[in-house]
Amino acid sequence: MEECDFNFNIVIVGLGLIGGSYAMALRKLNPLSISGIDVDENSLKEAVNRGIIDQGFTDGKEALRKADLVIMATYPEEIVKFMKSNIGDFKKGAVITDTCGIKEGLIDIINSFLPDELDFVGGHPMAGKESKGIKVASDDIFNNANYIITPTERNLKENIMLIEKMARAIGCKKVISISPEEHDKIISFTSQLPHVIAVSLMDSDFAENNIETFTGGSFKDATRVAVINSTLWSELFFLNSDNLINEIERFQKSMEKIKNAIMSEDENTLKHIFRNATARRKKMV
Amino acid sequence: MEECDFNFNIVIVGLGLIGGSYAMALRKLNPLSISGIDVDENSLKEAVNRGIIDQGFTDGKEALRKADLVIMATYPEEIVKFMKSNIGDFKKGAVITDTCGIKEGLIDIINSFLPDELDFVGGHPMAGKESKGIKVASDDIFNNANYIITPTERNLKENIMLIEKMARAIGCKKVISISPEEHDKIISFTSQLPHVIAVSLMDSDFAENNIETFTGGSFKDATRVAVINSTLWSELFFLNSDNLINEIERFQKSMEKIKNAIMSEDENTLKHIFRNATARRKKMV
Repeated sequence: MEECDFNFNIVIVGLGLIGGSYAMALRKLNPLSISGIDVDENSLKEAVNRGIIDQGFTDGKEALRKADLVIMATYPEEIVKFMKSNIGDFKKGAVITDTCGIKEGLIDIINSFLPDELDFVGGHPMAGKESKGIKVASDDIFNNANYIITPTERNLKENIMLIEKMARAIGCKKVISISPEEHDKIISFTSQLPHVIAVSLMDSDFAENNIETFTGGSFKDATRVAVINSTLWSELFFLNSDNLINEIERFQKSMEKIKNAIMSEDENTLKHIFRNATARRKKMV
Repeated sequence: MEECDFNFNIVIVGLGLIGGSYAMALRKLNPLSISGIDVDENSLKEAVNRGIIDQGFTDGKEALRKADLVIMATYPEEIVKFMKSNIGDFKKGAVITDTCGIKEGLIDIINSFLPDELDFVGGHPMAGKESKGIKVASDDIFNNANYIITPTERNLKENIMLIEKMARAIGCKKVISISPEEHDKIISFTSQLPHVIAVSLMDSDFAENNIETFTGGSFKDATRVAVINSTLWSELFFLNSDNLINEIERFQKSMEKIKNAIMSEDENTLKHIFRNATARRKKMV
């Protein structure tokens, strides 16, 4: 266990699954305080009662003024809206980070109105669940997950290091830094495309019937993320649509290639594709 | 635990992952004997040494003559080849079953040369692993799996019931009977299509690079079965190509619909598809 010096006042904006889980995991680092901001008073009450946060606020002003570290754990559009309308209330020198699945568009907008004395360091924990809300938050969802940090030239080195330290401290195994552009390109393939596929599979008329008796692991695994937060993922898809459309079309070409090999009983091509896929997938853990 | 009366001589043809696992699971039922037939002498040796089978044979004749129950655990084309060349050696009244992922074409061919005194009852355990061979066989791979039986008019009722009893006894939770035609139609969607998808995902140029750091559960789950037995799955795809092509094309249409909604920023359509997929997937365990 690395030694932690987390003498910060932390504010988490948005106490859902992710925000709540950050609060719970960060508690172990013994920070000065953890406050929560949410529009839902019930979530705040539950978070205070369970000791997940010290104080809850439906309005940002008071908590933000003393916050050294602010974690924006809401949807992309809400992050922009909240930060814009509370921009005068952040503490000078505060480090702000987020937990969003897209980066380029978001960070560009935020940096366009961010005062010089504030620093926004983008972060993306590759963790989640198929349920939402503070009720399902837990301090272990980041265990062994990957954490992507997307620094820009504007970021202070010490602030990037702080987010990296935080990511490791809450349990993430690998922490990697790449540019926001690169992040969005890769994530459209490794995360958004599998979500499109899961939803497309459940869209089939077949899935209307009771097919569970006829499924093995492959179908269940491929459709697990079809239980999807429709507001969040619509935003994520629209904000990264160029990259995502690109990956969907690449995938469609691969699928068409396999379909043609099956139709023409081209055993050599099919086996070649299978062997290639097998070799690549075996390299992954 | 239901009482078992399994006073049979069992022969398993093909001692790979599935055949070996059948032998191990069937041992618990205390049958008269379990013999194995395989072209690979090392597999036979290992199976005998580990007590998985009582005797091993590289040639079918001797074992088949006293076999009451024969489980064909090889690839579809090998099943046909083996049964044709050994058809005179099966014991009168023997029940023969298989473990293949396709049924209609296979059963039609077998029934075309099967003598009246033999009965072939198609079976498909919805279980597997991403590794192959007797080394990874285990007596618990059928636990809680689904088992599909595909009877034809030719089958004796008592023989169908025997296979059903066997499926439950080796650990399967749900045992369901449908026609071979219906089986192949459903399985093209619930099993073959997810395999096509997994392989298509790994076919992307992106997957050539080290993307593991950027993956969460969704990518890993969707590509788990991309580690694929290329000989077996080529056969399965070709033998069920009409159904599979049909399902690939339906999936392509669903995906195209989602792609168009993203391109045109049609939030209503996208959210409607998401909500529908979520509701359907939630019904599955």
